[in-house]
Amino acid sequence: MLPVVAVHGGAGTIPKEKEREMAVCAGMRDAARASYGVLKAGGSAVDAVVEAVRLLEDNPLFNAGRGSVLTVNGGVEMDAIVMDGRTLASGAVAAVKRVANPVKVARLVMDKTSHMCLAADSALQFAKEMGIPEVSEESLKTDYAVMRWQKNLAPDADPVVSQMGKMGTVGAVAVDVEGNIACATSTGGFINKMDGRVGDTALIGCGAYADNRVGAVSPTGYGEAIMKVTLARLIIFYMEQGKSAEEASDLGLAYMKERAQGLGGVVTVDSRGVWAARFTSLQMAWAAAQDDVIHYGLFHGEDFTQPAQQQS
Amino acid sequence: MLPVVAVHGGAGTIPKEKEREMAVCAGMRDAARASYGVLKAGGSAVDAVVEAVRLLEDNPLFNAGRGSVLTVNGGVEMDAIVMDGRTLASGAVAAVKRVANPVKVARLVMDKTSHMCLAADSALQFAKEMGIPEVSEESLKTDYAVMRWQKNLAPDADPVVSQMGKMGTVGAVAVDVEGNIACATSTGGFINKMDGRVGDTALIGCGAYADNRVGAVSPTGYGEAIMKVTLARLIIFYMEQGKSAEEASDLGLAYMKERAQGLGGVVTVDSRGVWAARFTSLQMAWAAAQDDVIHYGLFHGEDFTQPAQQQS
Repeated sequence: MLPVVAVHGGAGTIPKEKEREMAVCAGMRDAARASYGVLKAGGSAVDAVVEAVRLLEDNPLFNAGRGSVLTVNGGVEMDAIVMDGRTLASGAVAAVKRVANPVKVARLVMDKTSHMCLAADSALQFAKEMGIPEVSEESLKTDYAVMRWQKNLAPDADPVVSQMGKMGTVGAVAVDVEGNIACATSTGGFINKMDGRVGDTALIGCGAYADNRVGAVSPTGYGEAIMKVTLARLIIFYMEQGKSAEEASDLGLAYMKERAQGLGGVVTVDSRGVWAARFTSLQMAWAAAQDDVIHYGLFHGEDFTQPAQQQS
Repeated sequence: MLPVVAVHGGAGTIPKEKEREMAVCAGMRDAARASYGVLKAGGSAVDAVVEAVRLLEDNPLFNAGRGSVLTVNGGVEMDAIVMDGRTLASGAVAAVKRVANPVKVARLVMDKTSHMCLAADSALQFAKEMGIPEVSEESLKTDYAVMRWQKNLAPDADPVVSQMGKMGTVGAVAVDVEGNIACATSTGGFINKMDGRVGDTALIGCGAYADNRVGAVSPTGYGEAIMKVTLARLIIFYMEQGKSAEEASDLGLAYMKERAQGLGGVVTVDSRGVWAARFTSLQMAWAAAQDDVIHYGLFHGEDFTQPAQQQS
């Protein structure tokens, strides 16, 4: 069963273009494959989830790192988190600007400070002190993100509806060969959000939770709904009560729908390596790697496979 | 049983000065009494917890608002949160500067935006747009805070040990006459923290949780430990499983001690109005008001009372 990694590329609806769907699925498989390679080489679960998320931040198809949605003022502000199930240690950045890979900064917060979350300009300052290069805001913007930003500035636009349709938060959960568990999540947040908005992704228990005794969860979806029900911790709690990764994920997502009228999805893994990719949205891009097989899907009920050795 | 409010003024050790102890207890009673007055006049639970926390932010004895500890660079950066158990709506500010009452800004985030947390300079900008005056950083600093900051800059100083001894995060939980539940928490954070550090107080599920179906919790203690176990949501979970407010609080705090080696305390209330003030630290300043009686205490086992009508 071990090692295992599962990744997601956001819950919602991908624009109905076959080419984009295929590219999104390829991005998922590539991230799962690379992360699985880290694990197979004896790398830690933390190394594996950070590598998966780094690749997805670099992939402009997803709303994280390059490809992030823009704030109402046309900027790029990102949230990211990593959590180590061995110690419950975690690191996060909130509303950080001008770094290519927020998840790397989150990991440095975890490894190099006594704190667990740094925000805004101070997070960038810390990143620079740690040797992370500052990049231009423009380098993080895609034409697609700029187009959507402009569209949502229109007086009759509804960013909530727009966002519900097209998400792209990325995340990963993994169990390494030693049985250690970790997760990471990264996002550009909510389309046309206010400057300084911190969403679920920066918040332990909301946008991530990992505990070696139980498992790990990386959610995606409507951030404020995820926060209202502390979705990641809620699903871990159901698992502690004996539910499977799949049952717990479904229960948590159903609870979020009922209490907070929010749709979303998760990748979840338990301590034995049983994984689940579940969602209440129309679609969620996901992939998982286990026993040298890559699983992936986009719509409910899909579970395509290919050998892990095969290139996308 | 209703209405009821319980407040805390931080877990830890108050410097052994009888005069300071008495002033801290008076501050607790005053906040509980004023908040109880809001509830008796038919005010909402949200109104009541915000009023209690506002008073404690204004009281220089506590580590919130005026009286906050300083960052390593001698600044004042505050976290605050409010949560409405009716809707699970919440508002928070993280690492906000130059506002007298972060809890008021947190409430405006909840009431006036579609988001749940704003960070740093953007939170201040939002506050100003909402008509909250910007104040000087100096106006938030007390001589005591400056003295402790200087002391902890010494090469052999240990801010963690120093902070473990002297906390002062403030918080409140309340149930109003209609049975609605709310909580609020506010803090200057961790002594000599890095600029931009976001602690548990800004994070839903960590520094606050309120749910009309269950109850509410406002924690205090070592922020990073509270975050590791998402303490407020954890205690609500235990209550959902049938534990009393007191049992659930003790279980949550014991779990935090075991898993995250952290001490702290909470005020907790259930939907019927049963309240608890529990802590694993040596002391926690707390007070509660119910049935026209003010309860208060500082050391384990204390439960002093005085009529709610009496002045401190």
